[in-house]
Amino acid sequence: MSGLKVLALCGSLRAKSTNKALLEYAIAHAPDGMQIELADLTDLPFYNSDLKVQPLAVQSLLAQFAQADAFLLACPEYNYSIAPALKNALDWASREPDNALMAGKVAAILGSGGGMGTSRAQYHLRQVCVFLDLHLVNKPEVFCNAFANTFDSDVKLTDERIQRLIVQLLGALQELALRFKK
Amino acid sequence: MSGLKVLALCGSLRAKSTNKALLEYAIAHAPDGMQIELADLTDLPFYNSDLKVQPLAVQSLLAQFAQADAFLLACPEYNYSIAPALKNALDWASREPDNALMAGKVAAILGSGGGMGTSRAQYHLRQVCVFLDLHLVNKPEVFCNAFANTFDSDVKLTDERIQRLIVQLLGALQELALRFKK
Amino acid sequence: MSGLKVLALCGSLRAKSTNKALLEYAIAHAPDGMQIELADLTDLPFYNSDLKVQPLAVQSLLAQFAQADAFLLACPEYNYSIAPALKNALDWASREPDNALMAGKVAAILGSGGGMGTSRAQYHLRQVCVFLDLHLVNKPEVFCNAFANTFDSDVKLTDERIQRLIVQLLGALQELALRFKK
Amino acid sequence: MSGLKVLALCGSLRAKSTNKALLEYAIAHAPDGMQIELADLTDLPFYNSDLKVQPLAVQSLLAQFAQADAFLLACPEYNYSIAPALKNALDWASREPDNALMAGKVAAILGSGGGMGTSRAQYHLRQVCVFLDLHLVNKPEVFCNAFANTFDSDVKLTDERIQRLIVQLLGALQELALRFKK
Repeated sequence: MSGLKVLALCGSLRAKSTNKALLEYAIAHAPDGMQIELADLTDLPFYNSDLKVQPLAVQSLLAQFAQADAFLLACPEYNYSIAPALKNALDWASREPDNALMAGKVAAILGSGGGMGTSRAQYHLRQVCVFLDLHLVNKPEVFCNAFANTFDSDVKLTDERIQRLIVQLLGALQELALRFKK
Repeated sequence: MSGLKVLALCGSLRAKSTNKALLEYAIAHAPDGMQIELADLTDLPFYNSDLKVQPLAVQSLLAQFAQADAFLLACPEYNYSIAPALKNALDWASREPDNALMAGKVAAILGSGGGMGTSRAQYHLRQVCVFLDLHLVNKPEVFCNAFANTFDSDVKLTDERIQRLIVQLLGALQELALRFKK
Repeated sequence: MSGLKVLALCGSLRAKSTNKALLEYAIAHAPDGMQIELADLTDLPFYNSDLKVQPLAVQSLLAQFAQADAFLLACPEYNYSIAPALKNALDWASREPDNALMAGKVAAILGSGGGMGTSRAQYHLRQVCVFLDLHLVNKPEVFCNAFANTFDSDVKLTDERIQRLIVQLLGALQELALRFKK
Repeated sequence: MSGLKVLALCGSLRAKSTNKALLEYAIAHAPDGMQIELADLTDLPFYNSDLKVQPLAVQSLLAQFAQADAFLLACPEYNYSIAPALKNALDWASREPDNALMAGKVAAILGSGGGMGTSRAQYHLRQVCVFLDLHLVNKPEVFCNAFANTFDSDVKLTDERIQRLIVQLLGALQELALRFKK
């Protein structure tokens, strides 16, 4: 495998999102042989099967899905479930024939927020991935509480325990991808 | 109670949505003392706490939430979970101080789609409603399979079993609202 | 209402269960007008519809369910879901004709364990209660982390925040019961 | 791999369980290179960490878990969640040091019952398997409705669609096991 291409999706659209900060840490600490690219979900419209021509933002996203070997999903928790921006990106990508952009690929989940570290939303996301036929990393689970000392004033991840977990998660994703290499 | 004001939300944005068809049947068959109004989610942007000025579509929606005594949630299932358009509307409404637009109110869920009648998505939505502090109708659950004979060619609900279930659901919602009347 | 009769069920069978400790605190601090009785699940066999004669332990439990106006469910988390002893008690009680022992009654959930305070199990339990047609307290949710200073060496609850939450939960249960009084 | 050893667990304890019938069909139609053994959960007590000596039924079960390369889980649905007998078997097996009896192994789920084919319970079971670090077959999902023509009068599976799905499931389990072979 000449490098594992990972597409990272962030469920929060905020400029200073702590979930984006987790992904930025991952990008800066990707292991040898892994490249992580961050998808831009800003201009993605809500999925609507009435749209017969795919908007440009959708086309770009689907091209990135097609190139990706694996996915890294930053999953905020809004009202005990998945952030719509993340779910919507997956919904768009899922409508390709035979779910060809995701079926049989691998993915890892992490998330930042609240007192439970977005765990409630992450279990919903895991159920979504059954239908998408994504194979998920089981462990470690990365539940980051967005508390005082977890991020610095520039919303950069500073918590060393979470930093280590992210590195472990990327290692587990790489190993899982090797198992599912066709 | 001088009339129960119910705000109906449809998770599908399609013009010929079967979920909207369920709501249209409900609107046409609301029991005495209940008025059901359909929210328009078309122009609602994704929730983003960076937006300091509320878009007009959000303002209109929140005004409708404020007026409503109860909610009727038409819940499609996309990839085994909630449609982003529905979740996003609830996310916007939940950010008012003290969750004042929903806390302690009542709601009922129905949905149309796939082989399980959107049940997987509906259980996720029920978990969302715990945080929103909405009191939900337990029974009947309305799981509509969007099969050949359920809707006519104009996407009008014709299945009599589902029609009866919707009438029962509205009755149960009305009874529940009476219990939670302050 | 001449006193609200609450049946408390503990999912852990351990003698020094922290979940039982939560229930003991609740029993000792029940508000005026509420009596809480602790069910004994020790001798309950696994539900099996082949059993044509109900074991004595089942008969006793069902008699307690019949007397109860409300339920207090102490929900440990085993492997991210409900403890079998609790689920099994509810399964036995649910098989009475028309679910007469629970349908339309009210309940409250609390739990002690792990880093998430048994939240994963509690959301599964909430889904169970939809079918059982129990009306649940939404807030407060009581997620107790069974850490060093939460209980004393006799497994007595000493954490004041959790103590206050339990008192609030009982108040909310009492209020909810009033709303569902027939 | 000199034969894949699969341990089958049935959540229903009934003699004429339709879930056991699914497993019996699987056993009779295991592909070349797969042996499926059915665990006996009849005498398993409820998990209780106070028990310092493991009952014989537990010891036998754990020995079977240790021998198994993979698991086949027949998951009834009781009150919208997992049958306690199945959950309890997994709970016992999970308490070995480092979860050595299951961690990193593979599993497949099927179930018979009700109108949704036990799907609600199966998604709860999937969440359990995250903690157990079992890698699950995503597709096919086997949701068997225990209706009139699905089983014959001896509770033998006769529905050809479900028969094919089970064969596909076993094939997918075998393929997944190969990927996770160490």
